[in-house]
Amino acid sequence: MQPDVKMSIQNKMAFVRAYLLDSGMDAFLFLDMKNIRYLTGFKGSDGALLVGTTDTVLLVDGRYITQAKRESQGAAIYEYRDKMTGLMAVMKDKNVKAVGFEPASMTVDTYLKMQDKLDGISLQPIADQFYSLRAVKSEEEIRFMKKAIDISADALKDIEGLLKPGASEMDIALELEYKMRARGAEQVSFPTIAASGPNSALPHASPGNRRLQDGDVLVIDYGAAYGGYRSDETWTCVIGHADKKQKDVYALVKDAHDRALDKLRSGLLCKDIDLIARTCIEKGGFGDFFPHSTGHGIGLDVHESPRIAAQSEAVLKAGMVVTIEPGIYIPDLWGMRIEDMALIRDDGCDVLTRTSKNFRVLD
Amino acid sequence: MQPDVKMSIQNKMAFVRAYLLDSGMDAFLFLDMKNIRYLTGFKGSDGALLVGTTDTVLLVDGRYITQAKRESQGAAIYEYRDKMTGLMAVMKDKNVKAVGFEPASMTVDTYLKMQDKLDGISLQPIADQFYSLRAVKSEEEIRFMKKAIDISADALKDIEGLLKPGASEMDIALELEYKMRARGAEQVSFPTIAASGPNSALPHASPGNRRLQDGDVLVIDYGAAYGGYRSDETWTCVIGHADKKQKDVYALVKDAHDRALDKLRSGLLCKDIDLIARTCIEKGGFGDFFPHSTGHGIGLDVHESPRIAAQSEAVLKAGMVVTIEPGIYIPDLWGMRIEDMALIRDDGCDVLTRTSKNFRVLD
Repeated sequence: MQPDVKMSIQNKMAFVRAYLLDSGMDAFLFLDMKNIRYLTGFKGSDGALLVGTTDTVLLVDGRYITQAKRESQGAAIYEYRDKMTGLMAVMKDKNVKAVGFEPASMTVDTYLKMQDKLDGISLQPIADQFYSLRAVKSEEEIRFMKKAIDISADALKDIEGLLKPGASEMDIALELEYKMRARGAEQVSFPTIAASGPNSALPHASPGNRRLQDGDVLVIDYGAAYGGYRSDETWTCVIGHADKKQKDVYALVKDAHDRALDKLRSGLLCKDIDLIARTCIEKGGFGDFFPHSTGHGIGLDVHESPRIAAQSEAVLKAGMVVTIEPGIYIPDLWGMRIEDMALIRDDGCDVLTRTSKNFRVLD
Repeated sequence: MQPDVKMSIQNKMAFVRAYLLDSGMDAFLFLDMKNIRYLTGFKGSDGALLVGTTDTVLLVDGRYITQAKRESQGAAIYEYRDKMTGLMAVMKDKNVKAVGFEPASMTVDTYLKMQDKLDGISLQPIADQFYSLRAVKSEEEIRFMKKAIDISADALKDIEGLLKPGASEMDIALELEYKMRARGAEQVSFPTIAASGPNSALPHASPGNRRLQDGDVLVIDYGAAYGGYRSDETWTCVIGHADKKQKDVYALVKDAHDRALDKLRSGLLCKDIDLIARTCIEKGGFGDFFPHSTGHGIGLDVHESPRIAAQSEAVLKAGMVVTIEPGIYIPDLWGMRIEDMALIRDDGCDVLTRTSKNFRVLD
């Protein structure tokens, strides 16, 4: 099930409804707020969406009534005080007997409480299909992501002068986030990573008080959100003077990164892309130092379908946007990661991120 | 089950273990990263914690091994490639036959996948007890929250000069967040709300391009994180000139806020505190315009136990930290909310937030 690349909210909903009719269920229940935004336009942070065979109900609490009326398309608005009670009332009213739900977006707690109140309604997890609903992007979605990428790339340029011995990781992260916001990001995609020296050996380090020193590796993993859509990019450089090992490992990570990007195209299995990057790093002798997967889809969420991982049987399709981000992390010494975003085409891919990934020593 | 107010990680774990022995289960599985941080000190954003009757295992993937070794206390570290497979291996090794889990922290997807692999192990939701594990704060936790409050209050002062006709909501939110970070916040508690004029009628508005005008209500809901702990405060003012309705409604919200704070003390039911604020606003004729609950616990999460809501049977205890935040929202006109944080004592409460909530017109 792949939506067309030019898909309005109406089309997306027709697509879900066709799938619903096919499933034999009476309704689908969406609790993931990103999916609700995708299907209705409503940008609030709490609510529920019930898609029936003929009509759609967006359920929100009193805080969101005005916003839901303003932002949502194609859905009736229902106000609840208690979400579960509201859902039951709407399902009863719509004579829903079998409702599908996204098992990755419902907690066991909610599930048990719903079971308890269901009163004859059958609650059925929907298989994986919906996770990939958002994987292929429309032109509008890609435009938003490009804008997010522009904002983040320009912000990185803005703060390049700060990247000198003495600057703290916290200051770097703070100034970069400030510049992204000042350039129009609604928010940052995720807390910025600015990891220097031995901290860069932690793939998910939090910025701390450590100050840059000559010879440090500096890893900056950052992104902006625009129109709800995210960018995600990692830039690695060396401060002052680079040693041979730094140059060699950077070249190896870059090679893995380039090889994976070279092969990206519609029709390939995600696990095969992961294998290309992983094999390259293994052959270089650093297989034990690449402890994460090669990439992930990105859109309304920083991480979404498909995963570019060793176990991922997902097939790449034109219009998907994914990251490629191999890395090598040497405990207590330093680590390096290079990450770009790419739009899958039938015959290859377009790298969307703009910052050059050639090796750079800042002095 | 309420931890002592001076509780080290060792004590917290002993507390959980006593509860485990009492439950008759072999182990508790924690997936909520805030609970894992609370019980081990590990600050990573992915992992699992298995607390057995005699030992504790922190499971993380390769990205977090170094960090887990550095940050965690009292737990053996286990590295997994796939979390589920890793958990199964550890449980088999520890001869775990019955494991309790937090149903609010596990998705149905994870639950179904675990069920599928369990192979004779019984997976049992733990009742509500663990949600309140973190509700009573230690002195150290309160110290962190006070520091977060200081940072946010000082940052608001820093930007007060900006709050004039012409300033956009986005600029206000951006500068406030920047000042909080520059003053030492690790991050903001949540995306800052700066809502002006008719936007303030949306309790959860996102800052937009709207610029302040004379006569606007301005609602700023903001907070900082320090040492992992959050602050949360809402300050409402009027720009330029206030009309009679603004003054009257502010006085009513303030009255509801003050009355609830006056009654806060150990032993009271949370729903009774909600009722005090709600009744006050109802008597003032605005009962239909207060669509959310009166407050919530706060700590490692912005929202945690207990809820100060109409349905909440939770009992207040000394050492809990909660918000009190009544509001009145008049669609398409404006809204007002006043929020403070308070530490429950046996004989009352200490208001922790520092910014005055007296009515202010900025001119």
